Amino acid sequence: MHYRCRPVGLFAVFEAGLLKMRCHVVDVLQQVGGQLAEVYPSKPIYDIPGYPEIQARQLIERLMEQIASFRPGYTLGERVESVERQTDGSLVIATNDGTQIACKVLVIAAGLGCFEPRKPNIDDLSKYEGHGVSYMIKDHNVFENKKVVLAGGGDAALDWAILLADIAQKITLVHRGNTFRGSPDSAQKVVDLAKQGKMDLILESNLIAVNGQESLESVLLEGRDKSITELQADYLIPLFGLSPHLGPITNWQLSIDKSAIPVNPVDYSTDSERIYAIGDINTYPGKLNLILCGFHEAALMAQSAFKYVFPDQKLSFKYTTVYGKPTI
Amino acid sequence: MHYRCRPVGLFAVFEAGLLKMRCHVVDVLQQVGGQLAEVYPSKPIYDIPGYPEIQARQLIERLMEQIASFRPGYTLGERVESVERQTDGSLVIATNDGTQIACKVLVIAAGLGCFEPRKPNIDDLSKYEGHGVSYMIKDHNVFENKKVVLAGGGDAALDWAILLADIAQKITLVHRGNTFRGSPDSAQKVVDLAKQGKMDLILESNLIAVNGQESLESVLLEGRDKSITELQADYLIPLFGLSPHLGPITNWQLSIDKSAIPVNPVDYSTDSERIYAIGDINTYPGKLNLILCGFHEAALMAQSAFKYVFPDQKLSFKYTTVYGKPTI
Ligand SMILES: Cc1cc2nc3c(=O)[nH]c(=O)nc-3n(C[C@H](O)[C@H](O)[C@H](O)COP(=O)(O)OP(=O)(O)OC[C@H]3O[C@@H](n4cnc5c(N)ncnc54)[C@H](O)[C@@H]3O)c2cc1C
Ligand SMILES: Cc1cc2nc3c(=O)[nH]c(=O)nc-3n(C[C@H](O)[C@H](O)[C@H](O)COP(=O)(O)OP(=O)(O)OC[C@H]3O[C@@H](n4cnc5c(N)ncnc54)[C@H](O)[C@@H]3O)c2cc1C
Repeated sequence: MHYRCRPVGLFAVFEAGLLKMRCHVVDVLQQVGGQLAEVYPSKPIYDIPGYPEIQARQLIERLMEQIASFRPGYTLGERVESVERQTDGSLVIATNDGTQIACKVLVIAAGLGCFEPRKPNIDDLSKYEGHGVSYMIKDHNVFENKKVVLAGGGDAALDWAILLADIAQKITLVHRGNTFRGSPDSAQKVVDLAKQGKMDLILESNLIAVNGQESLESVLLEGRDKSITELQADYLIPLFGLSPHLGPITNWQLSIDKSAIPVNPVDYSTDSERIYAIGDINTYPGKLNLILCGFHEAALMAQSAFKYVFPDQKLSFKYTTVYGKPTI
Repeated sequence: MHYRCRPVGLFAVFEAGLLKMRCHVVDVLQQVGGQLAEVYPSKPIYDIPGYPEIQARQLIERLMEQIASFRPGYTLGERVESVERQTDGSLVIATNDGTQIACKVLVIAAGLGCFEPRKPNIDDLSKYEGHGVSYMIKDHNVFENKKVVLAGGGDAALDWAILLADIAQKITLVHRGNTFRGSPDSAQKVVDLAKQGKMDLILESNLIAVNGQESLESVLLEGRDKSITELQADYLIPLFGLSPHLGPITNWQLSIDKSAIPVNPVDYSTDSERIYAIGDINTYPGKLNLILCGFHEAALMAQSAFKYVFPDQKLSFKYTTVYGKPTI
C-alpha cells in the first residue's frame, strides 16, 4: 500500500497497519505533516477530539508515534509524478527523482496539492532556474566565495541569511517590508550582522528583474521611493514560502472537480480501481476540510482496500481495546 | 439543541458549540461516557487519532474538558422516553422521570441503546420489582434493620456489600463463582467481613426463585451440588452489570434497521426532520462502530443542524486555529 501524504496520510498508515497492511509514504516536502507542518506548525488546534488544545506540530509528532510500530517506508522530498497500471491491476508510481514504487493500492492524501515554492512574478525568471536562481538550499557549500541575494521576510530567509553570512563572499537580504515575520531572535541577529557589516540588508524593496548571459549575473530592485538598484549576484534565492498546487495529480486520469477528486463516500474510492483519495484532496456531498474528517475517511478506506492487498483473506473487524497494542 | 449521549454525544456538544449552538445532554446512566465509562473504563484504546494509547476513562475526561467552555446542560440518570413534534417543527422530549426539554434539534447518540441492568432469569421476578427487588441502590438508608441479599461478583456487588454490612440487619452476598471479577482489594475486604461474621458469603450458588405475598420475603439458591437453600430477605439486589437495550427509541417513528437508525451520510439526518443520529446508533453504507467515525459524524451533523437553530443566519466555516480558543 502506498500513501501520499499527511496528517491524514499518516493516520491512514495506522488504520492500514491495524489490518496488517504495510505502507510507504511519499511527500514532496522534506518533512512530514502537510499543512500542519508547513503552514501553521506552532498554532494551536482546538477541534482534534480529545485534545482541548494541541499545537499542529505536536499533533504530527503524536501521529508519528502512533504509527511507528507499523514501520512505514518514507520517500521525502520527491513528488509523485506518474501512476501506471500493471496488467494484474496493481500500480507503479514514479517520482520526479526517478524513484519507482510498486503497490497494490494507492491512497492519495495530497491535501491541497504539492507544496511548491511561491515564486516572484519576474519575466524570464524560469530561464535562470538551476543557473543561479533556486527556491531551496540543499548544499550550502556551493555558495562559498559567491555573491548571494536572498529575498523574503520569514524564518527561512532569516535563518539562511545568518548561516550564509559566514560562507558566502557577499550576502544581501532583500525584504519588501521593514519588519520581519520570522522569529524576533533571528530578526535581531540579522540586524546585528548587518550593523557589523557581515551582510547587506535592503528593506522596503522588491525584486523586479534578473539579468545575465548563460547564468545569473545581477538582480534589479525597486525601492518604495521607485529608486532602482542593481546588485551583482551569482545566486538569487527567493524564499517566499510554499503554496500548494494540485500538480501532477491532474494527469492521472482521475476526475477532478474544483481542484478535488470526487470519491464514493462509502469507502472514499475514486473512479479508478485501487486508487483512494482521503483528506482535503477529496470531495463528496457534505465534505468538510477538517483533519478529524480525514481520520474517519482513512478508517473506512482501509477496510475497503483490504480486499486488494489480501484477496484471499476475510476481513474481521476487531476493536483495538480487545486486540491489544497494535503492531505489524 | 439536545443530545443523548456519549462519547460521540459529548463531541457533538463541541462541534455544535463551535457554531454557537447550546446543548443539553441526557443519559440514563448517572455518569457520562457511554460504553467507555460503563463497559471498559480502564482499558487502553489505541485508535484515537493522535493518542498512541489512552484509557477509555481518560478520553471521556479529555472530552469533558474540551466541551466545558460550551457549558452544556446535563440530565443524568433519566431515560428519554418520548419525542413530540410541536406545530412549529421543534421538538419536546420527555424522560421517564417527567423532565421535559424543548429543543430545535434532537441528536440521538444512543450507542447500542440504554444501558439497563441485566436481570437474572427467574419466574415472577418482575412482580417484586419495587417491592423488594431492585437493580440499583439510590438511598441506602432504606436497608436499615433489613435483611438484604446482594447477588453478583463485580465491583458493584462487592462495594455495596461492604457499605451495607454496616447498615443492614443482615447482609448476604451470593455469587455463582468462587473468585470475584471486582478489584482484589474489595474482594479481600468482603472475605474479611465474612470471617468477622459481619456478612454472609455464599459462593458457587445461583438465584433460582423469589417468594413472598405482597412483597419479597425469601429467595431460593441452588448450590453447585444441587442443594437448595432458602434465605429470608426483605430486599434482593441483583448486580449483574448493565447491558444496552434499544429501548424507547423504537417508539419514535424512526425507521430502524437491525437495531440501528438508517441515516443520510451527507449529514447523518434521519428520515424525520430535525432529528439526527450519530455514533453506534446509526447505520449507513460502510458504517464502522468506531469512536473516531462518530466524531466525524458529529462535525457534519452540526453543519447541517445549524439551519434549524439559526434559520436567519448564514453558516460560515472557519478553522479553530484561525478562530482562536472556542467559547460560546
Ligand atoms: C491556517 C490553517 C488552519 C487550519 N486549522 C484547522 C483546524 O483548526 N482544524 C482542522 O481540522 N483543520 C484545520 N486546517 C485544515 C487542515 O490543515 C487540513 O484539513 C489538513 O492539513 C488536511 O490534511 P491532508 O493530509 O489531507 O493534506 P495536507 O496537510 O495538505 O498534506 C498533503 C501533503 O501532500 C503533499 N503532496 C501533494 N501532492 C503531492 C505529490 N504529487 N507528490 C508528493 N507529495 C504531494 C503535499 O506536499 C502535502 O505535504 C487548517 C488549515 C490551514 C491552512
Ligand atoms: C469492549 C469494547 C471495546 C471497544 N473498543 C473500541 C476501540 O478500541 N476503538 C473504538 O473506536 N471503539 C471501540 N469500541 C466501540 C465504542 O465504545 C463505541 O463506538 C462508542 O462507545 C460509541 O459511542 P456512542 O456515543 O455512539 O454510544 P455509547 O458509548 O453506547 O453511549 C450511548 C449512551 O446513550 C445512552 N442511552 C441510550 N438510549 C437512551 C435513552 N433512551 N435515554 C437516555 N440515554 C440513553 C446509553 O445509556 C449510553 O450511555 C469498543 C466497544 C466495546 C464494547
